[in-house]
Amino acid sequence: MITRDDCVALDARDELAWVRSEYILDDSLLYLDGNSLGPVSKAVQRRVRETIDREWAEGLVRGWGDGWMQAPTRLGDRLAPLIGARLGEVVVADSLTILLAKLIGGALDQRRERHVVLTDVANFHSDIYIVEAMASRAGRAVTVKVIERSTLDRELNDDVALVMLTHVDFRTGEMLDLKGITKKVHDVGALMLWDFAHSTGAVPLDVTQANVDFAAGCGYKYLNGGPGSPGFLYVRTSWQGTLKNPFPGWLGHARPFDFERTYEPAQGMQAFVTSSPSIVALAALDGALDVWDQVTVAQVRTKSLAMTDLFMALVEERLSGVFEIVTPRDHSVRGSQVALRHAQAYAIIQALIERKVIGDFRDPDICRFGFTPLYLRFVDVFDAVEHLVEVMATEAYRNPCSGVRKAVT
Amino acid sequence: MITRDDCVALDARDELAWVRSEYILDDSLLYLDGNSLGPVSKAVQRRVRETIDREWAEGLVRGWGDGWMQAPTRLGDRLAPLIGARLGEVVVADSLTILLAKLIGGALDQRRERHVVLTDVANFHSDIYIVEAMASRAGRAVTVKVIERSTLDRELNDDVALVMLTHVDFRTGEMLDLKGITKKVHDVGALMLWDFAHSTGAVPLDVTQANVDFAAGCGYKYLNGGPGSPGFLYVRTSWQGTLKNPFPGWLGHARPFDFERTYEPAQGMQAFVTSSPSIVALAALDGALDVWDQVTVAQVRTKSLAMTDLFMALVEERLSGVFEIVTPRDHSVRGSQVALRHAQAYAIIQALIERKVIGDFRDPDICRFGFTPLYLRFVDVFDAVEHLVEVMATEAYRNPCSGVRKAVT
Repeated sequence: MITRDDCVALDARDELAWVRSEYILDDSLLYLDGNSLGPVSKAVQRRVRETIDREWAEGLVRGWGDGWMQAPTRLGDRLAPLIGARLGEVVVADSLTILLAKLIGGALDQRRERHVVLTDVANFHSDIYIVEAMASRAGRAVTVKVIERSTLDRELNDDVALVMLTHVDFRTGEMLDLKGITKKVHDVGALMLWDFAHSTGAVPLDVTQANVDFAAGCGYKYLNGGPGSPGFLYVRTSWQGTLKNPFPGWLGHARPFDFERTYEPAQGMQAFVTSSPSIVALAALDGALDVWDQVTVAQVRTKSLAMTDLFMALVEERLSGVFEIVTPRDHSVRGSQVALRHAQAYAIIQALIERKVIGDFRDPDICRFGFTPLYLRFVDVFDAVEHLVEVMATEAYRNPCSGVRKAVT
Repeated sequence: MITRDDCVALDARDELAWVRSEYILDDSLLYLDGNSLGPVSKAVQRRVRETIDREWAEGLVRGWGDGWMQAPTRLGDRLAPLIGARLGEVVVADSLTILLAKLIGGALDQRRERHVVLTDVANFHSDIYIVEAMASRAGRAVTVKVIERSTLDRELNDDVALVMLTHVDFRTGEMLDLKGITKKVHDVGALMLWDFAHSTGAVPLDVTQANVDFAAGCGYKYLNGGPGSPGFLYVRTSWQGTLKNPFPGWLGHARPFDFERTYEPAQGMQAFVTSSPSIVALAALDGALDVWDQVTVAQVRTKSLAMTDLFMALVEERLSGVFEIVTPRDHSVRGSQVALRHAQAYAIIQALIERKVIGDFRDPDICRFGFTPLYLRFVDVFDAVEHLVEVMATEAYRNPCSGVRKAVT
């Protein structure tokens, strides 16, 4: 039996234990939802305050000349190492779906002779919506095939323009083979776009080694950039200058202050900026990235796997047969979350929330728990399972009819 | 002769004089660039702090259930009275160019049998870029005609799908006839999209009375929402449900937490939200809007016209023949800025900035000064002209060859 003392011991030797104090956390909360929204760090508070009270209040419009213009690419360069990108390949702006729209639109323009886009039926729903929306504006008939990803091999052919997949499945936590899939897609001459929403800051990524064409992600999950934080966009160097931003804007112009009648894209990733981005929102993300000056993705990954291993082991030990553990046991295909299947998943998550254990329900039957090594402890994992055991011991969850789903508010 | 004492007297009877103390301002600065970026208010500081330290830090992901989901439409409703919209017709999200892309794309889908979009050669450049970009993705051949707006009448015909104009010219400060132009456009069965970047919070707007179809604006100019603040989007009630958001997203779905495979737009303006917006950026704009609980657009307009009248009178009195005053004298067609034409415009603006008088250069020969009644005083207008007189008295600006333009940094 794994004991709480075992977990205390794990925390005592955890080389990331110090990082927790960088965050503002309510110690009465077991927060297993940092894969939905990360917490506030002290650096975020400082950086936002500095941006408002000094850069904006004192600098006023001069701030654009004092670094704001470069903020999207500067933050992109800070973020690049987290995905294995080179400097100058990442920019921060807009939000994830708009960024995906830019990349989908741009990519389809590069394969005008092809007519199919493949995406995964298990993809996050709005990723499918935006693939379909941009395919409908490709200037030719483009069919979006929403496939089971297990059938990808037989769907790939020389009419496929683009494959768009999410690297870590938002529901199951399964992590896909970045390099292997990208290679298969390239083998038929198609382009590969990855959504890194559930990957960045959580699992090792090497877009360079995997030869990824394009990727996008959000800032609010494992990056802790705040609710609705701007996202990021990756375009491999070899595509820059060729791939066009379908939504050209002032800040993406080669010479914004010449106010030219005709759009001419700036060099590099600046071309993917459209309007001026929220500098206050970027400041929050900037502060959130400070932690990566002292922590490596490898350290995070090691602890993440230890935490998800621990959670699975505890669930098996103490709740044997109660849940189906949907997330893969195999480390090589596991993200940083664990999904448990149960017919009463919604009610169970609600009961946990009442106990201040925050996880996510994902339709129709998934209890989803995110494990975020920057600020979670091994004892938190133990305590969360303790609560889950207590919840499952109540009459309600033995009776399959009692957990009627309420509207999510 | 108008004296500084006259201006002191004007300030003494100014019913908006008290508002200045709501802003963080450097008294050594004469800031005539609030039409580019407005200053920080104390309410902005408070609201952002509250959002980060309480809503995000304490609420974490529960914030989405505690009001964040509704923030785009709630802020839209706060903003609606400033443009004469009804509640439920405005939403805040994204940035101006992306919002224009949504409206242009949506509008073109509503006039599939038509093939022309008209816009103004004097429009802000990136407005023209996005009109062209979205026209190229309309799913049919659509020609963008970039016309002199004086020729609008003869360009309007039954092949025009959409007319996109900016209500107050960013360079000259000329204000167009909202109602008259909208009616002409409707008379040929076309749709009307207005850019209110230089209008909102500065001049009276009544989209309801003018029967405007669609409009968008930014949050960072006269609304003082901060650098790169999210913008807003207006869709007349009668278009809601019919006009489609070309970039469907999670937050615009009718039932976001059902994670449905097929996009079904939410009721009303929520459908125009794509990804989750930056809640920190929205908080800044929210705080900035507080002032409108106590101030009316009519008050602002009265003071704005008095200030621009004063500035023009002082320039004529003290710099007779030196500048061409480009901005109309006629109140009915004047925005809240004054543009002065001079061959040395760039160098003059640089010399003023060195004296801590902040205006804007606009290519090729415009000195642009914004007058923002919420925090500027009549003495500021006087003092700015005093500096301008001193700058023009230096040798440099008598010699037309000495003001070589430097790169804007």
